[in-house]
Amino acid sequence: MSDIEIARAAKKKSIQEIGTKVGIPTEHLLPYGHDKAKVSQEFINSVQDRPNGKLILVTAVNPTPAGEGKTTTTVGLGDGLNAIGKKAMICIREASLGPNFGMKGGAAGGGYAQIVPMEDMNLHFTGDFHAITSAHSLLSAMLDNHIYWGNEQQIDVRRVAWRRVVDMNDRSLRQITSSLGGVANGYPREDGFDITVASEVMAILCLSNDLKDLQKRLGDMIVAYRRDKTPVYCRDIKADGAMTVLLKDAMQPNLVQTLENNPAFVHGGPFANIAHGCNSVIATKTALKLADYVVTEAGFGADLGAEKFMDIKCRKAGLAPDAVVLVATVRALKMNGGVKKDDLGKESVDAVKKGCANLGRHIENLKQFGVSVVVAINHFVKDTDAEIQAVIDFVATQGSEAILAKHWADGSKGSADLARKVVEVVERGKSNFAPLYPDEMPLFEKIETIAKRIYRADEVIADTKVRGQLKEWEEQGYGHLPVCMAKTQYSFTTDPNRRGAPTGHSLPVREVRLSAGAGFIVVVCGDIMTMPGLPRVPSAESIYLNDDGQIEGLF
Amino acid sequence: MSDIEIARAAKKKSIQEIGTKVGIPTEHLLPYGHDKAKVSQEFINSVQDRPNGKLILVTAVNPTPAGEGKTTTTVGLGDGLNAIGKKAMICIREASLGPNFGMKGGAAGGGYAQIVPMEDMNLHFTGDFHAITSAHSLLSAMLDNHIYWGNEQQIDVRRVAWRRVVDMNDRSLRQITSSLGGVANGYPREDGFDITVASEVMAILCLSNDLKDLQKRLGDMIVAYRRDKTPVYCRDIKADGAMTVLLKDAMQPNLVQTLENNPAFVHGGPFANIAHGCNSVIATKTALKLADYVVTEAGFGADLGAEKFMDIKCRKAGLAPDAVVLVATVRALKMNGGVKKDDLGKESVDAVKKGCANLGRHIENLKQFGVSVVVAINHFVKDTDAEIQAVIDFVATQGSEAILAKHWADGSKGSADLARKVVEVVERGKSNFAPLYPDEMPLFEKIETIAKRIYRADEVIADTKVRGQLKEWEEQGYGHLPVCMAKTQYSFTTDPNRRGAPTGHSLPVREVRLSAGAGFIVVVCGDIMTMPGLPRVPSAESIYLNDDGQIEGLF
Repeated sequence: MSDIEIARAAKKKSIQEIGTKVGIPTEHLLPYGHDKAKVSQEFINSVQDRPNGKLILVTAVNPTPAGEGKTTTTVGLGDGLNAIGKKAMICIREASLGPNFGMKGGAAGGGYAQIVPMEDMNLHFTGDFHAITSAHSLLSAMLDNHIYWGNEQQIDVRRVAWRRVVDMNDRSLRQITSSLGGVANGYPREDGFDITVASEVMAILCLSNDLKDLQKRLGDMIVAYRRDKTPVYCRDIKADGAMTVLLKDAMQPNLVQTLENNPAFVHGGPFANIAHGCNSVIATKTALKLADYVVTEAGFGADLGAEKFMDIKCRKAGLAPDAVVLVATVRALKMNGGVKKDDLGKESVDAVKKGCANLGRHIENLKQFGVSVVVAINHFVKDTDAEIQAVIDFVATQGSEAILAKHWADGSKGSADLARKVVEVVERGKSNFAPLYPDEMPLFEKIETIAKRIYRADEVIADTKVRGQLKEWEEQGYGHLPVCMAKTQYSFTTDPNRRGAPTGHSLPVREVRLSAGAGFIVVVCGDIMTMPGLPRVPSAESIYLNDDGQIEGLF
Repeated sequence: MSDIEIARAAKKKSIQEIGTKVGIPTEHLLPYGHDKAKVSQEFINSVQDRPNGKLILVTAVNPTPAGEGKTTTTVGLGDGLNAIGKKAMICIREASLGPNFGMKGGAAGGGYAQIVPMEDMNLHFTGDFHAITSAHSLLSAMLDNHIYWGNEQQIDVRRVAWRRVVDMNDRSLRQITSSLGGVANGYPREDGFDITVASEVMAILCLSNDLKDLQKRLGDMIVAYRRDKTPVYCRDIKADGAMTVLLKDAMQPNLVQTLENNPAFVHGGPFANIAHGCNSVIATKTALKLADYVVTEAGFGADLGAEKFMDIKCRKAGLAPDAVVLVATVRALKMNGGVKKDDLGKESVDAVKKGCANLGRHIENLKQFGVSVVVAINHFVKDTDAEIQAVIDFVATQGSEAILAKHWADGSKGSADLARKVVEVVERGKSNFAPLYPDEMPLFEKIETIAKRIYRADEVIADTKVRGQLKEWEEQGYGHLPVCMAKTQYSFTTDPNRRGAPTGHSLPVREVRLSAGAGFIVVVCGDIMTMPGLPRVPSAESIYLNDDGQIEGLF
């Protein structure tokens, strides 16, 4: 059966029943249909004094076209923990609407480790991203309106830093000239649209502890500069209050369920390159109050996703992971070992062994954060025993353990071993989490620290403009911020073709950007696309409702 | 107490209880929070064989700054009918999000005749308008993507007819140049954004009988022309299926309640100028299966709103109103009689009598549709007995009856008399509805018929380009469509300052547009704004969440 067939055959429980499992009273669940609900702010406030459960981060080796199954493993581990008698919750990101009309949308998970309702999660879901688009668009309109009515803030219209957004893959809006058409329409200027998930509002929503914090951070966003180069903040345009009102419901975590009727929060979805790529802090923190184990994931591979999870999300939210599960597949390791995608069907223990270098480096890296690492081998049916054994043996040499997990085929039965190992590691209690660098380290040194200790680059290359900009921000009081690396996900280097565990490379920094509201410095290393386009034949062309009212072509 | 204070003090029942009142089983209500729900398509299908209830249209004299209270009377009459023992439902339009950030948002109704939850209805509500924005944006992206990848349909990029939309008052997007930035971003062209309620997708959603009909109409939309001037349809771009998927939930009517816990559908909200300005056909038709009386309203005054309700909505949906309630206020009649807004506080029976000319003409006009008319005098506390009596006496001379209605102050107690009169008129059964003109009348004659019989213009002025365009559409098979007049709402003429019952004017037609999917010809008479701007001090500047989490400044 395909993912969508399995998802449609799910025996879902009412969302109220799911809420009851983790002690959320029905009156504090705001339902969206029968299988989705938001958790009320009142309830979240009421559980703040409870102790926290254990936090498990699921991350992965560098992605390859072979697929790693990070979300699948996150879901499988959550189900596995519940199956072995632990009260566990899952926290993952929401999907972006626009890209589903380019290429087929995806499940949240796969096989028998999925979160449902799949269709809704790929479409409007509970409207969070629409609310973010609205809040972002309101600020855009108010900014141009401010200029139109006399520009009291003396914004330099050449230096507007606030681009527009839409939740659609629309390359024709990447670069536009706006306010054409004469006096009534304002002052023409260059502008452009990003996709909604790239909005700083998205990153802020995902990093805010509550609505007050949200409004403060929105106010802190820099929207433009004056001729004297001083920043104009969102607060100066007086948009922060109304934006917060628009985001009021979007800030509440969305409760849904796995195929095995276990509770999951699916909330927030910032870009993993120009933002930190994790689900919302409010969802993770709330889950920690409701469950003994919370399983969450971060975007891309561990070099980007886990590093940002630790250095941005955990640092800012005061979170500390109790264990990290590093997902690898035999197939992905083979590709890291040099096998081409078309040859993945053939057994190649040597290629697995060679590819393990990538896995090994991620294990080493993760240990630098003071966390215990369990490797999950996400099983594919064509994996051979010898290949699997090669991974297990390799991981043992790294002072860690690899567990074969078959949740894709068998649900929680297939992930119970992994769950037991995670519990064992957590109960051993040896995690001693610390971020990679302290707040007070100079910004350029922070970049160097990540480049050398995580990417294993020899040096960071940046011109004087970049270095000068970082200095300027330090002088303006932004020196304490963490850095958010925007780099290819496919390699430790900036060259997507260099798989495995490369050395002898340098990290060229092309550009730095300040996300003053989200609270990080974006370090752009290579081309970063913030507005995707549609392919020649977009998937939208074959999406339709069949005679039974079911959606065809979306998956 | 203000409207918002009354709304907040409402003792709402759960939306399931409201559904039960009209026989909608809980499993067929898709809840959005505890006080809003969508009605499932399965349930709607299941009631199709039931007989229809009676349909009451609420319309009004020409609007003045004094306010008429059309929605308030619609809600009051619905409550009044329920109070006198009739099973009644209310059907009104949804509010647009964007304009609330320019000027303060409004209640749905007022005083003790309101629909709640007011905050939600002024913000995201159930996401219908976001879905419309998404569906519209998808087509925009697919259209430019089609051109980008080789333009197989040979679209003349100078003749793209499909503008973009956003649900925000953003004048700087009215006119833009898109696809700038080189090869990767496409072919630069002129473009622009309208506000979402002006989208043809909105009009289509509100006129479609079901999802199949919706998809067909979406496919029929003309998005561009080729060099040989032949139209390119949405169907040619293959966007109609995916748009329907995006609109699947938005097509389902939204159930909410009045302050007196009576059921109301709030669904759809097309512009009342370039579109027909009525709530959705699916909501009205469903309500007619669930209730004995369905009270609905149309945009603007009776010259525009009621005419379009009859000639577009009823004609296309096969509906027939059983009675029309024409709302007037003493204040509005005084303004129609020449009194300035600042002088409305002073009694002036003469001005009332003079202003009754406007009322009288609307009564005459409405009778041309073969419907019975009841005049509702929506009571304001400063109205004097003599003024009210002047209206009652005047209406009696017109072969109709005027009823004083005090629902604003007293809820259903204040509207019971009006409700009884409406029931009396309906039970008398003299309505014999017919649209003003037959389908087969030539397009220009349709315009003339409305101009002469409703606006009482002597002639229609249109240049050869307009007349030629209409002829061309007739040759292309669009001659059977009704016409949708886009004219000022403040006067029977195109001059907003000519109140009362003017004669001796002509109707200049500036432009005609084909809405091939919605199924009407838009006749533009004067300036029509499809993208509003924000004022110098937008209301958004003072909107915020207070410490109790309540929204301040939105109302």
